[in-house]
Amino acid sequence: MPNFFTEADSVNAVNARVGADINPRLREVMTSLVRHLHAFVKDVHLTQQEWEMAIDFLTRTGQICSAERQEFILLSDTLGVSMLVDAINHRRPLGATENTVLGPFHVAGAPQREMGSCISFDGKGESCLFEGRVTDLHGNPVKDARLDVWSDNAEGFYDVQQPGIQPKWNNRGVFTTGVDGRYSFVGIKPVSYPIPHDGPVGRMLEALGRHPYRPAHMHFIVTAPGFEKVVTHTFVGDDAYITSDAVFGVKETLVAPFERVDDGRTIWRSPFDFILTPDGE
Amino acid sequence: MPNFFTEADSVNAVNARVGADINPRLREVMTSLVRHLHAFVKDVHLTQQEWEMAIDFLTRTGQICSAERQEFILLSDTLGVSMLVDAINHRRPLGATENTVLGPFHVAGAPQREMGSCISFDGKGESCLFEGRVTDLHGNPVKDARLDVWSDNAEGFYDVQQPGIQPKWNNRGVFTTGVDGRYSFVGIKPVSYPIPHDGPVGRMLEALGRHPYRPAHMHFIVTAPGFEKVVTHTFVGDDAYITSDAVFGVKETLVAPFERVDDGRTIWRSPFDFILTPDGE
Repeated sequence: MPNFFTEADSVNAVNARVGADINPRLREVMTSLVRHLHAFVKDVHLTQQEWEMAIDFLTRTGQICSAERQEFILLSDTLGVSMLVDAINHRRPLGATENTVLGPFHVAGAPQREMGSCISFDGKGESCLFEGRVTDLHGNPVKDARLDVWSDNAEGFYDVQQPGIQPKWNNRGVFTTGVDGRYSFVGIKPVSYPIPHDGPVGRMLEALGRHPYRPAHMHFIVTAPGFEKVVTHTFVGDDAYITSDAVFGVKETLVAPFERVDDGRTIWRSPFDFILTPDGE
Repeated sequence: MPNFFTEADSVNAVNARVGADINPRLREVMTSLVRHLHAFVKDVHLTQQEWEMAIDFLTRTGQICSAERQEFILLSDTLGVSMLVDAINHRRPLGATENTVLGPFHVAGAPQREMGSCISFDGKGESCLFEGRVTDLHGNPVKDARLDVWSDNAEGFYDVQQPGIQPKWNNRGVFTTGVDGRYSFVGIKPVSYPIPHDGPVGRMLEALGRHPYRPAHMHFIVTAPGFEKVVTHTFVGDDAYITSDAVFGVKETLVAPFERVDDGRTIWRSPFDFILTPDGE
């Protein structure tokens, strides 16, 4: 008897159709997807009406996407999938700086700046000195490490969200370490902000009783010859949302000190060392 | 310690965020979705690049959707999800006529026609007499059963796919049974056709080594007072695609006889009885 579709045999009915000569990795991923998707439908006994709601949700999520808006990434972020994909692909030895999500506001090509200089140009917010060392796993300084840094302004917006309102490259810069592996720059103490929540994902969060906020953080991409790229943030530990980041980006090791200094130059100081793992480990 | 996200605890990290007072069914569905989605990502060790491909695929699938095109339903259909949802929501006693997918080409409001009349108006195809009885589970005829029927034309297109080319309501009609429960009408022997395959789902099928064809079938929606609605097709058993329907719609009990008769009136005859289950069972 041919392999017609039945409720009990639904996974095999679908996966048996996959051609013999296809890409083996595609076969692995798609047959697993079908297995888990069918298990989900069976576990919750999904109704026809719920299926229609799911189709409608996915359609609206796709239709709101544009050059400036990626609602499927927001969906992945808010369901913890983005962090999970990052985690399983960036397992690092204890002590090494952990990754977190890149986020949608990185812009390539930010200006290279002198060590110690200020990246905040809109005169808003509480100034903060970010400083520390880039080292290998044994504490040796890493020379020629490139730190690409960015944060929101004191009103919770990145420069690219407010073109013409914020100065170009506001709260962004690139710094390169010398032989001592040290870095330092002056920005602002970042503030928490909501992810875009006027679309399907925002409505999903609301229905789930979740807020759309991310705790305050400074973004870093740290690269150095011979070391694995680190894409991460440092977080402000006393932020109201530190234990409820809408995209699950917080890791314990990424919560940085923000010390009040009021030293005439800056109000805050946030020391943090980046510890890199060798490439290819 | 707060419940920060970790690879090992990823499901709990996400599901622990769900609010206390939300709709309990939404909680059940969404926490199960997160559990299965994370299990899938972990099982296949999804790479960052594959995640990006998935985001891109979903985005393109959403963006091709329009009033005339529902690519997410095609995706659901081709992954067997539509048939699975139908199956778990329409379990019926042995002997009762089984459901299959509705498909995107049903149009409400087709003309009511006299029993025995012809619904094919474009002069194409091999004429076929469809006839049989609508009964309850005990073989008693069902009066006032309404049969809403539709099929493609001999070139594999539904009338709504070719407005201005096919006559309006070509190969569609509504018939109502009398006390004998009998129905009959003349259409054409349907032909196989591909689902829309010029979009992301078509490319997915190609990459999976699958074809986009559906075996030839006549659509029926059968309703009657006191009985559960049946949404189904009857299939042409010797169709080349009968064991490989792109949307998994074929069930063994829905393969109908198509007998060559050449009786001067029609070339084919396809007898099929619809056996209804009482409402609410």
